Amino acid sequence: MALFVQKFGGTSVGSVERIKAVADRVSATVAEGHQVVVVVSAMSGRTSELLALSEAITAEPDADAQDIVLSTGEQVTVGLLVMALRALGCSAAGVCGWQIPIQTDDSFGKARILHIDQEAIFERLQKHKVLVVAGFQGVTESQQITTLGRGGSDTSAVALAAALRADECQIFTDVDGVYTTDPRVVPEARRLEQITFEEMLEMASLGSKVLQIRSVEFAGKFRVPLRVLSSFEPGPGTLITLEATAPNFTEENFVNVETPVENNRMEQPLISGIAFTKDEAKIVVRGVPDQPGIAHKILGPVGEANIEVDMIVQNIGADQTTDFTFTVARQDFERAVALLETVVQKVGAEAVMGDDKIAKVSLVGVGMRSHAGIASRMFELLAEENINIQLISTSEIKISVVIDVKYLELAVRTLHAGFQLDAQQAL
Amino acid sequence: MALFVQKFGGTSVGSVERIKAVADRVSATVAEGHQVVVVVSAMSGRTSELLALSEAITAEPDADAQDIVLSTGEQVTVGLLVMALRALGCSAAGVCGWQIPIQTDDSFGKARILHIDQEAIFERLQKHKVLVVAGFQGVTESQQITTLGRGGSDTSAVALAAALRADECQIFTDVDGVYTTDPRVVPEARRLEQITFEEMLEMASLGSKVLQIRSVEFAGKFRVPLRVLSSFEPGPGTLITLEATAPNFTEENFVNVETPVENNRMEQPLISGIAFTKDEAKIVVRGVPDQPGIAHKILGPVGEANIEVDMIVQNIGADQTTDFTFTVARQDFERAVALLETVVQKVGAEAVMGDDKIAKVSLVGVGMRSHAGIASRMFELLAEENINIQLISTSEIKISVVIDVKYLELAVRTLHAGFQLDAQQAL
Repeated sequence: MALFVQKFGGTSVGSVERIKAVADRVSATVAEGHQVVVVVSAMSGRTSELLALSEAITAEPDADAQDIVLSTGEQVTVGLLVMALRALGCSAAGVCGWQIPIQTDDSFGKARILHIDQEAIFERLQKHKVLVVAGFQGVTESQQITTLGRGGSDTSAVALAAALRADECQIFTDVDGVYTTDPRVVPEARRLEQITFEEMLEMASLGSKVLQIRSVEFAGKFRVPLRVLSSFEPGPGTLITLEATAPNFTEENFVNVETPVENNRMEQPLISGIAFTKDEAKIVVRGVPDQPGIAHKILGPVGEANIEVDMIVQNIGADQTTDFTFTVARQDFERAVALLETVVQKVGAEAVMGDDKIAKVSLVGVGMRSHAGIASRMFELLAEENINIQLISTSEIKISVVIDVKYLELAVRTLHAGFQLDAQQAL
Repeated sequence: MALFVQKFGGTSVGSVERIKAVADRVSATVAEGHQVVVVVSAMSGRTSELLALSEAITAEPDADAQDIVLSTGEQVTVGLLVMALRALGCSAAGVCGWQIPIQTDDSFGKARILHIDQEAIFERLQKHKVLVVAGFQGVTESQQITTLGRGGSDTSAVALAAALRADECQIFTDVDGVYTTDPRVVPEARRLEQITFEEMLEMASLGSKVLQIRSVEFAGKFRVPLRVLSSFEPGPGTLITLEATAPNFTEENFVNVETPVENNRMEQPLISGIAFTKDEAKIVVRGVPDQPGIAHKILGPVGEANIEVDMIVQNIGADQTTDFTFTVARQDFERAVALLETVVQKVGAEAVMGDDKIAKVSLVGVGMRSHAGIASRMFELLAEENINIQLISTSEIKISVVIDVKYLELAVRTLHAGFQLDAQQAL
């Protein structure tokens, strides 16, 4: 008997029919002899309705009052799913965050989980095969309702899995796993059987919106095996593992395994996937005097204006001046350029230039740590297609390049084919 | 400084605009230096939506799971009203039933309140001028959410007022008070300044739907001064008092008094109002042998079929047989007659006859206890209009007659004028 935490998001519980389908799925897991803690979101659209209501009351609703309103969405789903499970003859109980309790700090609207009473959960699991828990919510020490902020139900699920030492935390979503890249751009994109937490973090931060970054971080930190699967189709999904070389340690327990376990995975895959984003813009400060502290003088005012900076590249030229280049979110582009016009004069630089027609493409893979030559192969593949590289940035498990946005799809397809991501899991 | 419990029903909080209007009303009370505990219902229509959702999941939802779903309606209103109050600069906190707690038994869907922690409320009232409480809900000792059933928010308000020994429990509704009779039938009908609990109970049980009977009983039992007023118009409403002779002991405290206090109320009013109902039917069992236990033999099967019986009249005739007459709800009429066809044969009665075109008209008034002649004056007034009386039933504070439904409006207008209800409060 294994213990699974299964999380179903808003789309997965978006209608009476879908809630019944979730009940089918959960009770199938129970029928195989397992215990299940189900974490549910609000029915899709309900949270937006509740937000609209509170914003109609007042332009800036207090977060503590808004949490009282917002937390009801998940509570409704809890009650409905308990009914649906019992209608299938499956013994189920339902609880809100305060009932367990899931204790949080008092940062209303974006609370952090402090403690989960696992004994209270195990007690309920002795009486019922399934415990349905409202995601996205908790309670402060002084008994006030909190919500966890964006992606909060994923966080609830991971935190429960960690507290209960669950065999697996299964996140059911509207995609059937993590892919080597976006299948809308590369039809040959392949579902990954597994991916490491570090890789998943890079993929997530680069626009692959399968999971919220916060829950992936949380799962990695507490070593919770995380699996992403589809609520609409059967299939094993993608397992997010602690180590790329780890055996498929949970597949024996997993109820829906269809893909045979590969035995040739003796080496780490070089590259797990290709992530990309079109939502950035590039800013170049030309002819910056090469002095200590110059980077701070340029980026300080940008940070103070709450503009987040992504890639930063600085090259010292021959003439003791440098070009200082960085990227920002496209929506902040004009504001950042205007701000830097004054900074340029202060620091004695030549000019500010910018380009908001750029895209960033990244190779992600734990394997590249120990393999030289990935970067040069990447540059070679892009050069063969006459794609000019404007910026390069590397980390241990990622190589990112900035290119003209018009080449984005070509670049992603070229790299996907060039690194044979459609064909293999391990080289 | 007085402490008021103010309850606003679903229509009063049915939209963002109305919630803001409620906030205006509450903060006006606060501005006069009072403390307020506000009890709110779900926004009108929301409870029906939630019921429909759960009935779409399963035909017979378990009451405990349904309570998880239903209780969210009131919770949303709590959060929204807290926001609206704070937007007016009025310090407010909001709580669900479990947070106080309002402890109930575990009769899910129709729970009874066992205990309210008043200290927890007073603590919150030291920090905030207003405490907004979700009506209709509570929590069991084992921390499960319950709802109180129909009219539950009224019950919550009365229970809170009793626990807090509030100066007044004010029920805001869509009518501006209790009337001498239905103003749609008698345009001269007059709002009562006050009415006793007993009279109110009779009026409520006779179809005057201003308040739920259960909350009136509760208020009487715990001696909570209850006031019914309109959420849409200013005005003092109707005070429901313990004694008809009691002075207007709360009017000094009341914030919206417009009607001058009458000083000539030295005697009890004879009659407070005229209630009526058209939803009943009459059944006559003719020629019943006059034997001990015969009433049980007739009414036993009716009760077992869950048919409620209202008036019961039995007259022994000269020939040692009797006519046994009673009234039932019109919707149960055909079922009751069919049932009695077999009973008649068993007990040796002659026949079952029925009439579903009847109406019941009742005079209600504490004053008739000590005044003879009210009944005969009533019969006289009806006879003057040639209205035939089919059945008579009396209690200490009520005289009811059953008449042909076609004379209903005429009878009510005749009695209203004949007892001068449009003109006076006390005779």
